[in-house]
Amino acid sequence: MHVIVWSDDARGAALEGPAAALHPDGVNGTVADIVREQLGAAVTVTTAGLEDPDQGLSDDALEMADVLVWWGHEAHDQVSEPAVDRVQRHVLAGLGLVVLHSGHHSKPFRRLMGTTCDLSWRERGGDEELVWTIDPTHPVAAGVEQPIVLGRHEMYGEPFDIPAPDALVFVSAFTGGEVFRSGCGFQRGAGRIFYFSVGHETHPVYQHPQVRRVIGNAVGWAKAVDRRPARTPAGEAPAAWGAR
Amino acid sequence: MHVIVWSDDARGAALEGPAAALHPDGVNGTVADIVREQLGAAVTVTTAGLEDPDQGLSDDALEMADVLVWWGHEAHDQVSEPAVDRVQRHVLAGLGLVVLHSGHHSKPFRRLMGTTCDLSWRERGGDEELVWTIDPTHPVAAGVEQPIVLGRHEMYGEPFDIPAPDALVFVSAFTGGEVFRSGCGFQRGAGRIFYFSVGHETHPVYQHPQVRRVIGNAVGWAKAVDRRPARTPAGEAPAAWGAR
Amino acid sequence: MHVIVWSDDARGAALEGPAAALHPDGVNGTVADIVREQLGAAVTVTTAGLEDPDQGLSDDALEMADVLVWWGHEAHDQVSEPAVDRVQRHVLAGLGLVVLHSGHHSKPFRRLMGTTCDLSWRERGGDEELVWTIDPTHPVAAGVEQPIVLGRHEMYGEPFDIPAPDALVFVSAFTGGEVFRSGCGFQRGAGRIFYFSVGHETHPVYQHPQVRRVIGNAVGWAKAVDRRPARTPAGEAPAAWGAR
Amino acid sequence: MHVIVWSDDARGAALEGPAAALHPDGVNGTVADIVREQLGAAVTVTTAGLEDPDQGLSDDALEMADVLVWWGHEAHDQVSEPAVDRVQRHVLAGLGLVVLHSGHHSKPFRRLMGTTCDLSWRERGGDEELVWTIDPTHPVAAGVEQPIVLGRHEMYGEPFDIPAPDALVFVSAFTGGEVFRSGCGFQRGAGRIFYFSVGHETHPVYQHPQVRRVIGNAVGWAKAVDRRPARTPAGEAPAAWGAR
Repeated sequence: MHVIVWSDDARGAALEGPAAALHPDGVNGTVADIVREQLGAAVTVTTAGLEDPDQGLSDDALEMADVLVWWGHEAHDQVSEPAVDRVQRHVLAGLGLVVLHSGHHSKPFRRLMGTTCDLSWRERGGDEELVWTIDPTHPVAAGVEQPIVLGRHEMYGEPFDIPAPDALVFVSAFTGGEVFRSGCGFQRGAGRIFYFSVGHETHPVYQHPQVRRVIGNAVGWAKAVDRRPARTPAGEAPAAWGAR
Repeated sequence: MHVIVWSDDARGAALEGPAAALHPDGVNGTVADIVREQLGAAVTVTTAGLEDPDQGLSDDALEMADVLVWWGHEAHDQVSEPAVDRVQRHVLAGLGLVVLHSGHHSKPFRRLMGTTCDLSWRERGGDEELVWTIDPTHPVAAGVEQPIVLGRHEMYGEPFDIPAPDALVFVSAFTGGEVFRSGCGFQRGAGRIFYFSVGHETHPVYQHPQVRRVIGNAVGWAKAVDRRPARTPAGEAPAAWGAR
Repeated sequence: MHVIVWSDDARGAALEGPAAALHPDGVNGTVADIVREQLGAAVTVTTAGLEDPDQGLSDDALEMADVLVWWGHEAHDQVSEPAVDRVQRHVLAGLGLVVLHSGHHSKPFRRLMGTTCDLSWRERGGDEELVWTIDPTHPVAAGVEQPIVLGRHEMYGEPFDIPAPDALVFVSAFTGGEVFRSGCGFQRGAGRIFYFSVGHETHPVYQHPQVRRVIGNAVGWAKAVDRRPARTPAGEAPAAWGAR
Repeated sequence: MHVIVWSDDARGAALEGPAAALHPDGVNGTVADIVREQLGAAVTVTTAGLEDPDQGLSDDALEMADVLVWWGHEAHDQVSEPAVDRVQRHVLAGLGLVVLHSGHHSKPFRRLMGTTCDLSWRERGGDEELVWTIDPTHPVAAGVEQPIVLGRHEMYGEPFDIPAPDALVFVSAFTGGEVFRSGCGFQRGAGRIFYFSVGHETHPVYQHPQVRRVIGNAVGWAKAVDRRPARTPAGEAPAAWGAR
């Protein structure tokens, strides 16, 4: 099983202050460590970003991967349309996609959802978050404490402009009284997509053992049941599940 | 359009203290007034309860109704199995069912859900509730403010042991940090079911204009698209949609 | 209530043979007549197409409409990206969208679904179709016979690469043994979308009373519960439900 | 992993003619062999039926099991209410349940669905069935051919009076033109339920390699993510997921 962890922070070079201290190798470095810790020897992990050839999202790279983990924040607009096309095509052909935190506004996620993916937002000193499990039968909830208690953090609230998820796994509450569908599973084509909202880069949420478990579970779940080739020669129609 | 509003408080005789003062004609009287106010001349409303013949749930009564509104709290166990059978049969044949507050533990709702319908619960001095709209396309959310702000009230929290609803319309947050799927639509057979958790009898939540609007919307939505006869002679199999 | 019926056949000028005979004013003319017949005086209807200014899909036109009905077949590629942007933005803000037949491959539908919307396909002499109602509680199924029996027609079969619909209303069987999710409801943002696969232009399926009823029901259902302005000045972000 | 395969044919003693020849040890014997073949050394399998103490459904037996497979046809009424109570309680606490063929009308399935589970039915000489995969991301569809081609067999058709499944995996077509949601996944409490309609005892459908694969996949999928004790002393409330 091979996993690509992608982030738009130039492997940490674009981070400042506490974020830089928390993620010395970039957020993708931090998340890659989580995937290795949680899935162990069964998985190989590489990191990728805008600074790589083809923005780290070539047909070759995606074809070899089982799951792509996406974290983006400041540079959504720099992701090229051909790269988004490739990600969409591979996901519909069975590449798993785990979207973290502000990746809700990333081009690949918005493309696959078909909606704005807008949400309510607030960053201030005092918001704590509780993550409640709604669906205990879902593999991403396996072994997860009820609730996950997160310290000071950014607030993401409803309305969250996504299609109704195929599985609503987590719902969060914030000190300010907001609620948020913080863990959502989607099926699209032959691909599985999981959105998990936790992950602000200036707070140490990715050091929380329960958050690490959720990310590991999500990567494991997102591996396709039915993966098929998605490399497409120029000018040919994309090979999607429906086209058999 | 005809609506039956049922409650298990003997038209107020079983209420005490602030609940008795808030509901002089019983909770079904209070809710019947809401339905009349919200749906106007288009609807006729009767109240019913355990103290009526056949517990107010005869085949004759149910056959004439478009929607049954259910509020129950202290006397779930007194509802007879034949009455539950009749409610289930009529709902599957197209009788709308709106279940309020502690009706989550009523026999008809549990029968139709197939699960325990257990939830977390706490009553104390200080819990306020915010009701957030999750699905703005749903008729029960029409014209409803975002969020509904409720004062001191009882807390109902996840985990809520229901099947994943066919429409998740509202999610609530409580001062204590809990979340709850407070407005859920279900389709069962030819019938529509809406559960709305707001309604503790000792607080004046049913005087809140937004809560009144939700209840009116829910009753309007629950009216069947395809109602069919459900009266069943003794010994014959129930006539459900699937049996055509 | 105002409805725009859009098709890509130049109001019939692009049709040939039996299709031209069946649709002397274009397929949008045929469907506009159905909408008028089914919804009566409550509705005004206009037709639109590629040949109109802004391809008939200006912000002004869309802002005035409650529902857009889309039929397209041969000219999907000619729909401009800005027109698709506008349709997506207005649907997410509450414009209803009814997509007919080969509109499954139209740019607006694919944009809103996020998938390829590919399906299996065959046209030959002998395929008949039976349309079965799966969800009798859905307004689009109101008063519809079980099953709808269609004569010789084009085959659309699974796999159909769409997200799992929020409501699966109809499933069809074909003489060749195929099945197809032929009537699907979706919520996206504040908008409602209904896909109905019946409608091959060379067979008289739109003269079938039951098909006419389904189209009328779909248009009535797609009218928004919560419509909001979606006209966007250049350079500003789209106003979607999530952005409140 | 431990699996109980239950059937109501007295380990074959209640079968006649071709059914007796096809299932010398009862249908539960045939299905137990399939489970062993498909899941191999990872699983232990026992058979159970009405003729066993506690109808083979004691708290002790269910507590030790991960998945219960249910096949029933002629003796649904003989299953005792306490046995149904126990199955429901254990499923809500995480026991997987795979329901085959005419088990759609079994008491445990109807109890857990809350609906009649009625369907259309016909047995005659010539109906063939094609089973089409609708959701290729679901584990029960892993490695399954598209479509599964079944020879002469009984017809089960829509309308099928079940709640909308949480996952619609297979839809079948029959020679007579009917369609049927033949493979459906449900979550209830902490339990997973899969209904698969194939399995008429007088035809050799359980010898079909693809059908065997589906049954193996379903049993593997139904194993709980979060299993908890469900043994209940007399007089105490059932311990369900929601009651934590």
